[in-house]
Amino acid sequence: MIAIVYQPIDVSAVLREASHDSSGASVLFLGSVRDHGEKGAVSEIYYEAYLEMAEDALRKIEHYVIEHWNLLGFVTIQRLGLLKVGEVSVAIAVSSEHRKEAFEACSYVIDAIKQSVPVWKKEISAAGSRWVEGVMLEDNKEDGYV
Amino acid sequence: MIAIVYQPIDVSAVLREASHDSSGASVLFLGSVRDHGEKGAVSEIYYEAYLEMAEDALRKIEHYVIEHWNLLGFVTIQRLGLLKVGEVSVAIAVSSEHRKEAFEACSYVIDAIKQSVPVWKKEISAAGSRWVEGVMLEDNKEDGYV
Repeated sequence: MIAIVYQPIDVSAVLREASHDSSGASVLFLGSVRDHGEKGAVSEIYYEAYLEMAEDALRKIEHYVIEHWNLLGFVTIQRLGLLKVGEVSVAIAVSSEHRKEAFEACSYVIDAIKQSVPVWKKEISAAGSRWVEGVMLEDNKEDGYV
Repeated sequence: MIAIVYQPIDVSAVLREASHDSSGASVLFLGSVRDHGEKGAVSEIYYEAYLEMAEDALRKIEHYVIEHWNLLGFVTIQRLGLLKVGEVSVAIAVSSEHRKEAFEACSYVIDAIKQSVPVWKKEISAAGSRWVEGVMLEDNKEDGYV
């Protein structure tokens, strides 16, 4: 399942939802707000998305990875709004029979999100704020999630 | 930190312990008991280890990966004893500034555990029980954790 939410992500629930009795391996990725960016200290990040397009893009990724890696469980949650340092902005949990597929699929999902899901982020610091990432922005050189 | 325990692994605590304000990426691997093995249905798995050697091997892995991938957080917990289907036998959480290092390090750790940490497992089913994996066993062809 995929979801875009405005509340803190319940990581335990994500793992439970992605688990499966036939699975021997689960891999979870958490992207979280760092205390610094390319330009220095960061206190918060504001995430914004083009909602319908973002949900469609997440669903496409979900369908692809479940089939391609024969996953037994898949959950991806993107959080929007104002997040403090340490808070989780994106959680991806997958489970599979063996670990190789779980690692590959999870890693693929975060790469694909960064490439195809329209989410933008604005770093906020004592010095002010600036947009630092966005799919489909022309200037999209920075590595935003992580 | 590394630990070998006989109680259920608190995955939320593992993630908290591995988190860091300067980290943008955390990757968690969970190995769990599948409902089947190479020979059919499995109801439980019994894990046993050579404790001091296992702890030493885990510490060596810890030191190597923290330095090699410049990790900000590292936790690995191996559980021993009798585990039911779905229960977590090993949890590995790492955090780093960027995601590439976190994925590589986490994947390395579970491979290294399987190669160098003396943990054995016995599958238990309605038909009986059999040892299926063990570092330093001669017949070690099966992929035990996952």
